[in-house]
Amino acid sequence: MRLLRSDSGGHFIQATVRGDVLMLFFPRPLQDPIRGRPKEIPHNEKLLSLKYESLDYDNIENQLFLEEERRMSHMGFRCLEISRWVICGLIGILTGLIACFIDIMVEKLAGCKYQVIKENIEKFTEVGGLSISLILWAVLNCAFVLVGGIMVAYIEPIAAGSGIPQIKCYLNGVKIPRVVRLKTLLVKVLGVICSVAGGLAVGKEGPMIHSGAVVAAGVSQGRSTSLKRDFKMFEYFRRDTEKRDFVSAGAAAGVSAAFGAPVGGVLFSLEEGASFWNQMLTWRIFFASMISTFTLNFFLSIYHGKPGDLSNPGLINFGRFESDSVAYYYYELPLFMGMGAIGGLLGALFNSINYWLTIFRIRYVHRPCLQVMEALLVAAVTATVSFTMIYFSNDCQPLGPEHNEEYPLQLFCADGEYNSMATAFFNTPERSVRSLFHNQPGSYNPLTLGLFTLTYFFLACWTYGLAVSAGVFIPSLLIGAAWGRLCGILLASFTPTSPVGAPHSGIVRMTLSLTVIMVEATGNVTYGLPIMLVLMTAKIVGDYFQEGLYDIHIKLQSVPFLHWEAPATSHWLTAREVMSSPVTCFNRIEKVGTIVDVLSNTSTNHNGFPVVVQVLDSDEPAKLCGLILRSQLIVLLKHKVFVELARSRLSQRKLQLKDFRDAYPRFPPIQSIHVSQDERECMMDLTEFMNATPYTVPQDTSLPRVFKLFRALGLRHLVVVDDENRVIGLVTRKDLARYHLGKHGLEELQLAQT
Amino acid sequence: MRLLRSDSGGHFIQATVRGDVLMLFFPRPLQDPIRGRPKEIPHNEKLLSLKYESLDYDNIENQLFLEEERRMSHMGFRCLEISRWVICGLIGILTGLIACFIDIMVEKLAGCKYQVIKENIEKFTEVGGLSISLILWAVLNCAFVLVGGIMVAYIEPIAAGSGIPQIKCYLNGVKIPRVVRLKTLLVKVLGVICSVAGGLAVGKEGPMIHSGAVVAAGVSQGRSTSLKRDFKMFEYFRRDTEKRDFVSAGAAAGVSAAFGAPVGGVLFSLEEGASFWNQMLTWRIFFASMISTFTLNFFLSIYHGKPGDLSNPGLINFGRFESDSVAYYYYELPLFMGMGAIGGLLGALFNSINYWLTIFRIRYVHRPCLQVMEALLVAAVTATVSFTMIYFSNDCQPLGPEHNEEYPLQLFCADGEYNSMATAFFNTPERSVRSLFHNQPGSYNPLTLGLFTLTYFFLACWTYGLAVSAGVFIPSLLIGAAWGRLCGILLASFTPTSPVGAPHSGIVRMTLSLTVIMVEATGNVTYGLPIMLVLMTAKIVGDYFQEGLYDIHIKLQSVPFLHWEAPATSHWLTAREVMSSPVTCFNRIEKVGTIVDVLSNTSTNHNGFPVVVQVLDSDEPAKLCGLILRSQLIVLLKHKVFVELARSRLSQRKLQLKDFRDAYPRFPPIQSIHVSQDERECMMDLTEFMNATPYTVPQDTSLPRVFKLFRALGLRHLVVVDDENRVIGLVTRKDLARYHLGKHGLEELQLAQT
Repeated sequence: MRLLRSDSGGHFIQATVRGDVLMLFFPRPLQDPIRGRPKEIPHNEKLLSLKYESLDYDNIENQLFLEEERRMSHMGFRCLEISRWVICGLIGILTGLIACFIDIMVEKLAGCKYQVIKENIEKFTEVGGLSISLILWAVLNCAFVLVGGIMVAYIEPIAAGSGIPQIKCYLNGVKIPRVVRLKTLLVKVLGVICSVAGGLAVGKEGPMIHSGAVVAAGVSQGRSTSLKRDFKMFEYFRRDTEKRDFVSAGAAAGVSAAFGAPVGGVLFSLEEGASFWNQMLTWRIFFASMISTFTLNFFLSIYHGKPGDLSNPGLINFGRFESDSVAYYYYELPLFMGMGAIGGLLGALFNSINYWLTIFRIRYVHRPCLQVMEALLVAAVTATVSFTMIYFSNDCQPLGPEHNEEYPLQLFCADGEYNSMATAFFNTPERSVRSLFHNQPGSYNPLTLGLFTLTYFFLACWTYGLAVSAGVFIPSLLIGAAWGRLCGILLASFTPTSPVGAPHSGIVRMTLSLTVIMVEATGNVTYGLPIMLVLMTAKIVGDYFQEGLYDIHIKLQSVPFLHWEAPATSHWLTAREVMSSPVTCFNRIEKVGTIVDVLSNTSTNHNGFPVVVQVLDSDEPAKLCGLILRSQLIVLLKHKVFVELARSRLSQRKLQLKDFRDAYPRFPPIQSIHVSQDERECMMDLTEFMNATPYTVPQDTSLPRVFKLFRALGLRHLVVVDDENRVIGLVTRKDLARYHLGKHGLEELQLAQT
Repeated sequence: MRLLRSDSGGHFIQATVRGDVLMLFFPRPLQDPIRGRPKEIPHNEKLLSLKYESLDYDNIENQLFLEEERRMSHMGFRCLEISRWVICGLIGILTGLIACFIDIMVEKLAGCKYQVIKENIEKFTEVGGLSISLILWAVLNCAFVLVGGIMVAYIEPIAAGSGIPQIKCYLNGVKIPRVVRLKTLLVKVLGVICSVAGGLAVGKEGPMIHSGAVVAAGVSQGRSTSLKRDFKMFEYFRRDTEKRDFVSAGAAAGVSAAFGAPVGGVLFSLEEGASFWNQMLTWRIFFASMISTFTLNFFLSIYHGKPGDLSNPGLINFGRFESDSVAYYYYELPLFMGMGAIGGLLGALFNSINYWLTIFRIRYVHRPCLQVMEALLVAAVTATVSFTMIYFSNDCQPLGPEHNEEYPLQLFCADGEYNSMATAFFNTPERSVRSLFHNQPGSYNPLTLGLFTLTYFFLACWTYGLAVSAGVFIPSLLIGAAWGRLCGILLASFTPTSPVGAPHSGIVRMTLSLTVIMVEATGNVTYGLPIMLVLMTAKIVGDYFQEGLYDIHIKLQSVPFLHWEAPATSHWLTAREVMSSPVTCFNRIEKVGTIVDVLSNTSTNHNGFPVVVQVLDSDEPAKLCGLILRSQLIVLLKHKVFVELARSRLSQRKLQLKDFRDAYPRFPPIQSIHVSQDERECMMDLTEFMNATPYTVPQDTSLPRVFKLFRALGLRHLVVVDDENRVIGLVTRKDLARYHLGKHGLEELQLAQT
């Protein structure tokens, strides 16, 4: 076990324990390991899970690949480029259609629901017995949430939540199982419809990003493994590097469809995913984003009976702001910053509460039935709270002639008036946000807004992390909008949008893309400056207290996520200290039995193996000559590419890149491949298949340097060599993700088989 | 000499000729070298100049550096981070102030000039003899341009043009001499004031980007070498890596001040400069951008007597667009695309003309006096053409009660009317753009617009590349605006901004940032979609015919610029073929005489030297153990860090990182360092100073792989080693920049000592 004494400088105790199941984190236990061992189960954030594999964002340049590239003409590359654009167009269209479907379904279902409840309430307002209305509301909500919850909890748990943390991890290079599968997409789309229609405090925007990513991963491969259909198209793109680029485009298309913000989508993808900015890639991402918002708009405009109208670029629509009504002055800027700061604090509070809630859930609510029950509970509570708030509210507002209320509840108000609390609660969150922006000054009294902000804050906080498919964007915007309007009333100056994003920025902490998204969504650049200021303040304040919500969830899942840079104080660590050693290597021509045994060893479960040339009659470490992956070896074993067989069956077809592509990405496990005893004695020649030029570092390379190389190139394995090019270690993602800057300096996370 | 037969696959003739002065490009001369040799001087674009050195965007991690980093506490790193933010704030403020100064000066000077000419014209319209007005106009223009031209041509030629290509190169990693010096800034700022006041078809926006970059390079170093002042601040940032980050911020601040587009500024920096997207860096760049537009706005609002007003976020101000007047429909989109396509064609035409003009200038107009004379000629012609157009125009428009014309010229129009051609020509280009956007429908007749577009197109094309400090942004926008308005009139539907950017996109081909800049500058997101569509079409069409203007100028300067990716068809080249070999290496402990001799050798002029451990009694290549730079060796020689001296003078202070930082960036030439004959016999121990862990690649690595490593990490030297870690070659920027995709497949540029 490796422990790191953060305050005593550069002293290590090292022992190999990878593969141990129980591994605990010792705060500073060197002198007294017993005292430091916590009695309870440690928080997962101090662990790194071993279950996550990495993706290969570095091209495997073996002989097969190079031969193919060399055979390809200039025209061939141009065709590839064109097919990339075609795929991006398809991604945009499909993502837009999915957004369209979600939007229409939610509108239909929620419309029916609110209509039924409204009629029921109206009926019982007169005759008394509104508790029946409450029960009806709760039951309807629960019914929707039940369907959504069961799908998520039992069919595809990865579809829970917004999916943004998962996509972040995917783009970062972590393989999250089943994250970009068709089944996930279906559960996600149906789930989010159920959640929103079920009246939960959630948005339908976050899931669009995940949906776009799944669409991209599917379309770009030209086949569906789930449906067992192979269209024999786009075979060139069947590897992680290419797939990642398309998934970036898909995520951007998702953002674009969700918020009508194509530039914001591109920025989101870059902010979360890109390790290396490539202009052509950016272009294609932009193209996908534009197509996506176009498609959505086009079909929605037809659906709304106004074909050709361009007012529905995204799922969320803030409505139109007139420039004149939104002037602001320099002296208001400190005010904005103050609001930003409070937004940051709110965000940090939200995150802290959600953090504890998530830990609670990890410990006690991990069985599917419990998860569904919790979702039902939240749905019922949401309905009850909403109803109670509306019931006890006496904030009646006159119903104007051109009122925008979809379902104005009269309740106990006089005729021609409606209950103001109901505009906030008795509506889908998107509509509530729009009402808060645009309703006439005086539509809400401060008490209504204050109560709404408070209850909605806790409801949203409780809801995020439930086993339902849902986003946190709209709830946080809604909190921001309500609270911003409250501030506006209290300060007697009406500054609608600017502080809106603050809680959201405080919660999720993306900024540049968020600014652009907000500006694009409000449709007015005049707000640009205050929005930026508010978001920036919120982020700075929030960062001081808590991490971003997505980061918290990634950490709690113990994902080996690589940040932008190595921790600042890690210069005194070198490759020698962070690497895994000794390394399992293969010879250039290796016995099949050895390979099968190594691959079958479940205690190590390595994925990359340096290929070496052994110096005869010597115990010295061998010289590196290549790197080969488990997945490649599996394919070789499956096709029985053994030297002896090749000699006897000269006519046998040579293994091609196509065979590897066909097996990608679901390579069979080693257990499914049968190797007879005779075959075990055969030899395998890896020369043609290994990556002959893997990146290497000398053993004295500092951690930041290793980190930079690893991150910039999207590596999965980095071989550490000595000054004679002999393999002495291997650096993988987990070796780098382990180090992070804690409160007491550099800390090391422990690996665990969670 | 290496020649590459593009259509005969993988066959090379190789011979070392680096250092030769005369090197010609043979189109396809292998069989018959005589026939292929062109008689005239080859176009410079087919050469790579040897005069440009690279910047070190990879940290030199030697022992000194690592010791310093390890000594630094967590608090120390936090302080560094805070100073980075402070510097970005300062960059923003200073850039904003410079923009403010330029704006006010231009307004004052141009105001005076137009007032004088207007009075003169009015006087002579009645009495006849308008030729005197013409001469007055031409003389005034020439006077301004003379001052600007002399400054640029004689004092600082690098300040010519917009400076954007130079900043692109700098961020790409090419050291352009004197590009970020104080003198350059002064000449640039005064020069652009003269050019705009001198009535040339230029904008003041482009130079802001260069100015911001110079400010950043200056502020971040905490000293001015030109002024010989060292504030002993920010010493940590005195290296290329850190400086580049600040220069990115400065360029973004420049864009932000120029267009009031902070997000656009960030995108510009990333699009042009960033090789690796780092979130914290993006944040700081964004901060600098925001501060810059704030500062400009704040001071301009005071200057205009409306403190606190926020309507001047940038130098260019398109005025306010009301959302209602700008609705558009789907059926208009093909129209926009058509306009984009024509814009792209116009851009390609512009670039082609400018390309030939530039080649002409390189050949015949290279003496400063000729350059000044050409500038004067252009100034006089501009005035004459403008005057003629106004004179012969009979497009009179009634002067409305709330007319926005700054200098309405009545000329031969009836009382209460003004000459419409004069609004376009008798004005600074910024105002002309604004008039074109906002003047009432019917303010211009099609003939006026057509003639204006045509003449202005050629004027702008002739002007770009003159020895004056000026940007091409506004002229191309102006062409777009005039032509867009013309289309609007012809199609009887008024779609003001959308096609505006098309010629610009056609000319310079940045897109994502350009879109955001345009959207931020118009202040209305409603235009977002059509702007994107137009810009995208324009870029695609333009790319088909010609490269971007900046790229053309970079190529014509023979700069070894690295693009995003290696050419697609370059997989069959390996490190062995592209590397320079043999390499001059030093031993770990090397004789001073040897070092001095190698450094003094002007025919090679290498900048990086692998440090090796020689195997005794063997002729084999030696094992790599580090990499040292010329600049480091110079400092070592200057401080006489010789082993013998260290022994005799034990008390001597050890050389520190500070000594290297003090010498940065203007390291003295080797000739200025005196080394006596005795000292030549001493030894130097390089162990402590060399980068002990340079990045290496095996010799079989494919070119795309080498390229990716080189570009992603911002390397300057990449050592090629064999499988025993022995040095066999060195890859530098020029080795990679040589290969490009021409019409006949992969072409190789030749190196020349231009």
